Amino acid sequence: MDPRCPTRGLLERIGTRWTSMTVKVLAEQAPGELRFAELRRRVPGISQKMLSVTLHALVRDGLASRRVEPTVPPAVHYRLTALGLSLEEPLAALRAWAETHMPQIDRNNRLADRHTPDGPPA
Amino acid sequence: MDPRCPTRGLLERIGTRWTSMTVKVLAEQAPGELRFAELRRRVPGISQKMLSVTLHALVRDGLASRRVEPTVPPAVHYRLTALGLSLEEPLAALRAWAETHMPQIDRNNRLADRHTPDGPPA
Repeated sequence: MDPRCPTRGLLERIGTRWTSMTVKVLAEQAPGELRFAELRRRVPGISQKMLSVTLHALVRDGLASRRVEPTVPPAVHYRLTALGLSLEEPLAALRAWAETHMPQIDRNNRLADRHTPDGPPA
Repeated sequence: MDPRCPTRGLLERIGTRWTSMTVKVLAEQAPGELRFAELRRRVPGISQKMLSVTLHALVRDGLASRRVEPTVPPAVHYRLTALGLSLEEPLAALRAWAETHMPQIDRNNRLADRHTPDGPPA
């Protein structure tokens, strides 16, 4: 729980929706690899820029590896490393929790927005 | 995986380090409650503003509840709801993964920073 603990920054990176979705899609393909364009198709709504940033972070952390095929134009392939694959289990559990409880949380949000809180701020 | 799926925003909220740390501290106290100032002491490095924002989101999602004791000044207490407590299990698994693999990821980052990537960008 030390504020300088690097685990905190790591949690921030792996907790984002785009990392979670990208790891999920790569895990479905494991041990195979996927090209950038194919990844982008399988993570609907992700921008080219955001997928680039997400993949760069995954490669830098050693969670994914990047292979460049020297064709013209070059084909860039990504796959999860063993470390990246080990992350899919806790991430999948968190996604499953979010999917299971989303309807309840949605209702909670709507209720909270109807009742403006009384009482002083925290 | 639909881009408009609200689960994605939810993942973003519960995946942040501050949410994870705050839920952990409240789970340790469950079924008891904690005052704002005590919470702040137990989540080192969190600012007053960030703790406020984090707690507001937890309450709005129905993951925590807030009780105001009408003293002067008013004492504000927080505790996890059953829903919030159910989130601690997958969050704890993700934190455990991060703590276990942090040294390896740290090494991967240092290695990546020494070797500038060759090949074209993704």
